[in-house]
Amino acid sequence: MTRAPHPPAIAARAEAVAPFLAMDVLARAAVKERGGESIVHMEVGQPSAPAPRAAREAAKAAIDEGRIGYTEALGIAPLRERIARHYREAYGVEVSPERVVVTTGSSAGFVLAFMAMFAPGSKVAITAPGYPAYRNILRALDVEPVEIPLERATGYVMTGEALAATHARTPLSGALAMSPANPSGTMMDEATLASVARTCRENGLWFVSDEIYHGLTYGTPAQTALRFDPDAVIVNSFSKYYCMTGWRIGWLVVPDRLVRPIERLAQSLYISAPYLSQVAALAAFEATDELEAVKAGYARTRAMLLEELPRIGLDELHPADGAFYVYANVSRFTNSSLDFSRRLLDEAGVAATPGVDFDPIEGERWLRLSFAGAFEECREGVRRIGALLRRT
Amino acid sequence: MTRAPHPPAIAARAEAVAPFLAMDVLARAAVKERGGESIVHMEVGQPSAPAPRAAREAAKAAIDEGRIGYTEALGIAPLRERIARHYREAYGVEVSPERVVVTTGSSAGFVLAFMAMFAPGSKVAITAPGYPAYRNILRALDVEPVEIPLERATGYVMTGEALAATHARTPLSGALAMSPANPSGTMMDEATLASVARTCRENGLWFVSDEIYHGLTYGTPAQTALRFDPDAVIVNSFSKYYCMTGWRIGWLVVPDRLVRPIERLAQSLYISAPYLSQVAALAAFEATDELEAVKAGYARTRAMLLEELPRIGLDELHPADGAFYVYANVSRFTNSSLDFSRRLLDEAGVAATPGVDFDPIEGERWLRLSFAGAFEECREGVRRIGALLRRT
Repeated sequence: MTRAPHPPAIAARAEAVAPFLAMDVLARAAVKERGGESIVHMEVGQPSAPAPRAAREAAKAAIDEGRIGYTEALGIAPLRERIARHYREAYGVEVSPERVVVTTGSSAGFVLAFMAMFAPGSKVAITAPGYPAYRNILRALDVEPVEIPLERATGYVMTGEALAATHARTPLSGALAMSPANPSGTMMDEATLASVARTCRENGLWFVSDEIYHGLTYGTPAQTALRFDPDAVIVNSFSKYYCMTGWRIGWLVVPDRLVRPIERLAQSLYISAPYLSQVAALAAFEATDELEAVKAGYARTRAMLLEELPRIGLDELHPADGAFYVYANVSRFTNSSLDFSRRLLDEAGVAATPGVDFDPIEGERWLRLSFAGAFEECREGVRRIGALLRRT
Repeated sequence: MTRAPHPPAIAARAEAVAPFLAMDVLARAAVKERGGESIVHMEVGQPSAPAPRAAREAAKAAIDEGRIGYTEALGIAPLRERIARHYREAYGVEVSPERVVVTTGSSAGFVLAFMAMFAPGSKVAITAPGYPAYRNILRALDVEPVEIPLERATGYVMTGEALAATHARTPLSGALAMSPANPSGTMMDEATLASVARTCRENGLWFVSDEIYHGLTYGTPAQTALRFDPDAVIVNSFSKYYCMTGWRIGWLVVPDRLVRPIERLAQSLYISAPYLSQVAALAAFEATDELEAVKAGYARTRAMLLEELPRIGLDELHPADGAFYVYANVSRFTNSSLDFSRRLLDEAGVAATPGVDFDPIEGERWLRLSFAGAFEECREGVRRIGALLRRT
């Protein structure tokens, strides 16, 4: 028996995955809070409101009823049926419950869909800036993200034209669009969403539409990509509008032919989504009044931020059409958004996410502030940031 | 713009993943039950007992306290600390809490650890029979499982000698052992576990020890692989001994140098494990009396099965040292365990898992019966199987 070097090597794909800096900021902020410091949280995109009362009561009733067991890998039937009904009611689109896959948050939805759609070595278009986990999950699966830089001239969204030009240079297997978007809150209008869908179809690309911020819009409601392409792969979640981040529950809508490959993957990679979260999510659909009140709170905080941030010197913002983020240009104050976010945490007690999380290059000039927290906390955040900027 | 064929192709890696047949049986059984049929469940390895009372109360209190939010990607600090303490108390092994990673069930533990350890194209030894998700997760990550057939002569467990011989023929990157094992319940004695650990170390292989059935032993207690190799990667879960399947909560213990790569992967692929499940798991450690009573129930059912199964003609069984499975030779009755399990479900109303789930070749001759269910349900299962076998 020959001796090989010990210890064995770490896989290159793990080394290729960047940290999700928002989660790093969360972890560092948690350490400070355990040490007694006051921290204003504007880093992670999670509502400060709890899950709707009906969802919490449903979970407690399920705990009292008995065993919290595995479910079918695709999710419990009543939840799949209720999600299908949601498409009819919210968008006027018919979706069969068989095409709905309940997932452990949108995170699991991405892993499952990407695994089923994209072979190792293939290329997928994403936007820069964009949700960092897209890039990281694709790389972990040996798929190459191809970034389409967003431009002010086109409203900071992916367009069919930009996608076609990218595909002409670098043949793609798919494209991933998000509206409302993270980190910016920008939305694609119907014509733009339709043009991206059409570009995918004409070029034989998978089209993935991340609709996690649907419901959280402050003007025109968001449209599902299914209206423009019945074969679009939809990713959604109960984390944002439904205020259920830590429950880890979301869903996919996929074309028929993807259901069984995704079911097989889900059986082994996840077994099933957490049962309590499935039960709670089902009840969350009946909590519209409560959730609309939460959204009214975001609207109030958003209005305050759009008024106050320019006053403290943050006057170049992406359009915050939806979601609960403001993406602010901080290049007057720093060349490194990562350093800047560390200073904000250490010197001002404000946790915010550096733009480099969303865009490794241009992101050095931007900072994402989440206004999913309470109004007064966000106002205190602006006050603290303003005081730091006056000293900078 | 040239037209490419629509629709786009499904990735080969998704097509390469076999169904987890136990989950398929679960889904088919659920359809029958919704249609009013009486089904005895002996297919899925999940306790019929609910999570311990302390765990359920902790979850309910957390729901009442407010927001169920994301946590640090590696898990809440008190749970990581409590798991570390468990190693000191249960095994006399010192583990730093920094090396503990809280995961969304052992499923997430496998995905994260495999991604961090194994490059695409590398080979990893597993046993046949063995937990099907190993094979499926490895294939989904483009890693090749290499099966070591288990033999009666060596007590149906992986040995250092068999591993070394396999590595000499097919150079490996790692090996995955499980004791007590699924589907058989067999255990590796200390010398065998130590020899597998030593073989990995001498050959520069990652050693993964799946310890999910620890606590569920009916003779000698199980030993953690950390006693024989401090660099072993340990996978564990609250699903089995702690009766928390549908909560989807587990953990890894990994060498220091794997913590950060796994944290980065977890941030993007999972964000965090479900918060309620983390809180409940922490409380479950204080429920030993209740959990030992559940285990006493398994012991009683196990004794009944080991007495009754030979009487109905199932007289060749793997040693059921631990876990809650009996792996029975059914080759007197069938050439296809899959067909046989369908007949059991359709004609006898018993859901059981075909051996081909665990071993694509030899498994045609075997059937796995789970005795995690209630005593009376299992006795009814034996009665129904016996009636079918008398007609066969």
